[in-house]
Amino acid sequence: MKRTAYRLADIAARFGGRVLGDADISVDQVATLDSAQAGQITFLASGKYRARLAATRAGAVIVGDADADATQIPRIVCDNPYLYFARVSTLLNPPPQTVPGIHPRAVIGEGALIDPSAQIAAHVVIGAGAQIGAGCVIMEGCSIGDNTTVGEDSRLYPRVVVYHDCVLGKRLIAHSGVVIGADGFGIAMDGERWLKIPQIGRVAIGDDVEIGANTTIDRGALDDTVIEDGVKLDNQIQVAHNVRIGAHTAIAGCVGIAGSTTIGHHCRIGGSAGILGHLQIADHVEISSFTLIGKSIREPGSYTGIFPFSKNAEWRKNAAHLRHLDGLADKIKMLQQEIEALRRKD
Amino acid sequence: MKRTAYRLADIAARFGGRVLGDADISVDQVATLDSAQAGQITFLASGKYRARLAATRAGAVIVGDADADATQIPRIVCDNPYLYFARVSTLLNPPPQTVPGIHPRAVIGEGALIDPSAQIAAHVVIGAGAQIGAGCVIMEGCSIGDNTTVGEDSRLYPRVVVYHDCVLGKRLIAHSGVVIGADGFGIAMDGERWLKIPQIGRVAIGDDVEIGANTTIDRGALDDTVIEDGVKLDNQIQVAHNVRIGAHTAIAGCVGIAGSTTIGHHCRIGGSAGILGHLQIADHVEISSFTLIGKSIREPGSYTGIFPFSKNAEWRKNAAHLRHLDGLADKIKMLQQEIEALRRKD
Amino acid sequence: MKRTAYRLADIAARFGGRVLGDADISVDQVATLDSAQAGQITFLASGKYRARLAATRAGAVIVGDADADATQIPRIVCDNPYLYFARVSTLLNPPPQTVPGIHPRAVIGEGALIDPSAQIAAHVVIGAGAQIGAGCVIMEGCSIGDNTTVGEDSRLYPRVVVYHDCVLGKRLIAHSGVVIGADGFGIAMDGERWLKIPQIGRVAIGDDVEIGANTTIDRGALDDTVIEDGVKLDNQIQVAHNVRIGAHTAIAGCVGIAGSTTIGHHCRIGGSAGILGHLQIADHVEISSFTLIGKSIREPGSYTGIFPFSKNAEWRKNAAHLRHLDGLADKIKMLQQEIEALRRKD
Repeated sequence: MKRTAYRLADIAARFGGRVLGDADISVDQVATLDSAQAGQITFLASGKYRARLAATRAGAVIVGDADADATQIPRIVCDNPYLYFARVSTLLNPPPQTVPGIHPRAVIGEGALIDPSAQIAAHVVIGAGAQIGAGCVIMEGCSIGDNTTVGEDSRLYPRVVVYHDCVLGKRLIAHSGVVIGADGFGIAMDGERWLKIPQIGRVAIGDDVEIGANTTIDRGALDDTVIEDGVKLDNQIQVAHNVRIGAHTAIAGCVGIAGSTTIGHHCRIGGSAGILGHLQIADHVEISSFTLIGKSIREPGSYTGIFPFSKNAEWRKNAAHLRHLDGLADKIKMLQQEIEALRRKD
Repeated sequence: MKRTAYRLADIAARFGGRVLGDADISVDQVATLDSAQAGQITFLASGKYRARLAATRAGAVIVGDADADATQIPRIVCDNPYLYFARVSTLLNPPPQTVPGIHPRAVIGEGALIDPSAQIAAHVVIGAGAQIGAGCVIMEGCSIGDNTTVGEDSRLYPRVVVYHDCVLGKRLIAHSGVVIGADGFGIAMDGERWLKIPQIGRVAIGDDVEIGANTTIDRGALDDTVIEDGVKLDNQIQVAHNVRIGAHTAIAGCVGIAGSTTIGHHCRIGGSAGILGHLQIADHVEISSFTLIGKSIREPGSYTGIFPFSKNAEWRKNAAHLRHLDGLADKIKMLQQEIEALRRKD
Repeated sequence: MKRTAYRLADIAARFGGRVLGDADISVDQVATLDSAQAGQITFLASGKYRARLAATRAGAVIVGDADADATQIPRIVCDNPYLYFARVSTLLNPPPQTVPGIHPRAVIGEGALIDPSAQIAAHVVIGAGAQIGAGCVIMEGCSIGDNTTVGEDSRLYPRVVVYHDCVLGKRLIAHSGVVIGADGFGIAMDGERWLKIPQIGRVAIGDDVEIGANTTIDRGALDDTVIEDGVKLDNQIQVAHNVRIGAHTAIAGCVGIAGSTTIGHHCRIGGSAGILGHLQIADHVEISSFTLIGKSIREPGSYTGIFPFSKNAEWRKNAAHLRHLDGLADKIKMLQQEIEALRRKD
């Protein structure tokens, strides 16, 4: 692929910031401080990498005000170098161009409406009555259920499955292995056996959502499962039926969210965390990795519940007491009383 | 889809319970108290939703004896409203009808036996010698390995993979992304390198099992991995080689079960729990979400091991002591001895 | 399939060890002590199974020196019966033979180089400029991205997805549902919204790696994500962008590894463990199941952080104190001071 180069002056004209050094230097790719070459632009997001800045061979660098003079390399000085770098990278790495049309080995259901500007790859199945918006790219082996709608400019990587009747917003990115709209885990005990409860809700996804590889989002039992605008989900997340995830919340890999829980907007949830069902999580809540949330959280803030690791031998000694913590607490109470008694005698 | 409506009288004739109010009212769908409309039936499973019952616009409602008079809406009074609702929903939401036949873009291996009443969708591969029972629906992109058997009336959603030589029971539901029969994690250290151990067992699955999206069940190393009748598995569960899961056990999402562990019947395992290998779990055991079971459980009952979450700042203060719990316990012992000494002096 | 049988004498000639009893006995399959039949060979890896050895109907058995006389069944005596068994099993269970050629329903991109000895199954898509090495088996429904290279004698089970520009080594085994090279979770806050950061690194995988079903390995943000030679990954593992996993490290199912963490060689990581981002884990480190590693580990050894489970009622009593551990520790300090005061008074 032929890369497009931009002069620092062009970049600053587009994204702001001021250029120090030669503004006519051109760059065509971003790179790390360590690996950047001439013709590439790197960034310094934190002062602790200043030693690496000294050694970089980058053609240009993005720095904050505090580091404006930390190098003589041509540079763009701005408020937030990491965000600025993200913008420059987006400029230098546009998504691959869409090739409109339906591959002859795709199978299109009756009454499906596929925008002529959309790209449908080989071995895709589009269900009856489904709608694929303008500019969409549905890559090989994807399966779109009957009557499901995919908003414009969405990109579904190979082998994404969306069940019937779901509504996906604009500019969705769904990575390979994502499953949207499978049945929620709804069962009722009927004597000694489980009876399956039909899952008749849908999945409704807002605009500008990204969903990582092998993440699963179940359809609602009766009402819908809802993912609001701008939500970012990493890989292998499990979203159970009737969950609602508020706008612009970001969730790291391997998190499990049980049924009917509502998560606020602008939350951040760490990897492998869990949230039990039927809870309310407020807006702007941060949950640490590996933490189980077992009660609703009403206040913004940062919440944690991690067992700190140690050498196995130490852990053994310490963990043994956990099973007797109640006993330890009782002993302490007793000691207090005994000391009190001794004191009174004095 | 044209929906079929049923009168309350018809429903009660089928499932029992007594009708209060107009028994000729017809319903064609179930819904929640909040979203139900005329022509739909809802249910009150717990007294705590009584306020919502007052506000519902449902055409009919399923209630328990205690709530027989809590509304004037036409209603069915029964012992277990949730189970009753599950039955009504099953009646009103039959599975989509099977369209027998093999799609021309499916690939069928030599000697495969496919019942003429089965439906084989596009891009399916059926291996040599495989058998697909009557009434099965194998949706697009599924892959059935050589000599694998799928019992009658099973439904495999798009892109399920079953490896060779597995035996799946009747009425199996497997959701998209399920992988059955991949190699177990069997390796032996050979000097400084791992040697792979061939996994020559199978996966054997009983009748009436449901398996959630992206769940994986590995084939046995030598003997089989076994899932008994009526087991219900949620999404993203990992079942390692030679595990046996007893009949009618239900397991929530993201659980991992290590090799050669046997789980009893009628157990319930919460989301993101884990069970180490080579353990025995008794029948009727409940394991909480996020709990690691590291020893066999011989008695029915409820078992838990969760680190309770708190505000991050509090957690930091408390967790620091966990690494010194053994020291704290020693201090308490010492204090006891010192108090004893002081007492004797008195 | 016709099985090939080997005499004990042939096996010992190949792998060493000494035969006791009839060296002309032939075996054509391995089996467990309990299920082995005549014509099959079993093994005794640990003295605790000696009672089962007495009852086995196996035609032959592999034992250690200590158990050379524990049975009269024809046997091979060796140093490491488990490893010896692994070798014999590999001999008796060769991989299915490759059938070179490209299935007419595969789709091959422009400029892709597929070795004539490779087997490309139905519904596979090979991207433009991709290279598939000699002896590879790419099973049905796999998707290989543009310019990706797959090393010789690799086997990709059905529905593996590899994105563009990745480099996979020789003899890779990737099980169904594996996703290699999806975008890492790179986002930057831009006001109140997330801006996606293009993920322009690759995934580079060494030789002799095995990857379990539904495991995901994200491509690097700028530099590559790297899996070194001989790494063994179980099912449903999440490897984030720019992780490096050292040679011959083995990781059990459901582990999550956050971005930019480096793991040493010959490590062993238990199921459902987690490792936070930007950490360094030394060589020869063992991490217990269900343990979160939140700091770098500089020394080899075994590390653990598991909340021990107990009956739910006990857990409730004990866990309540965890939220007040700091208070308990303070009380102990106070008691010490009070006792000190009492003593001084004496």
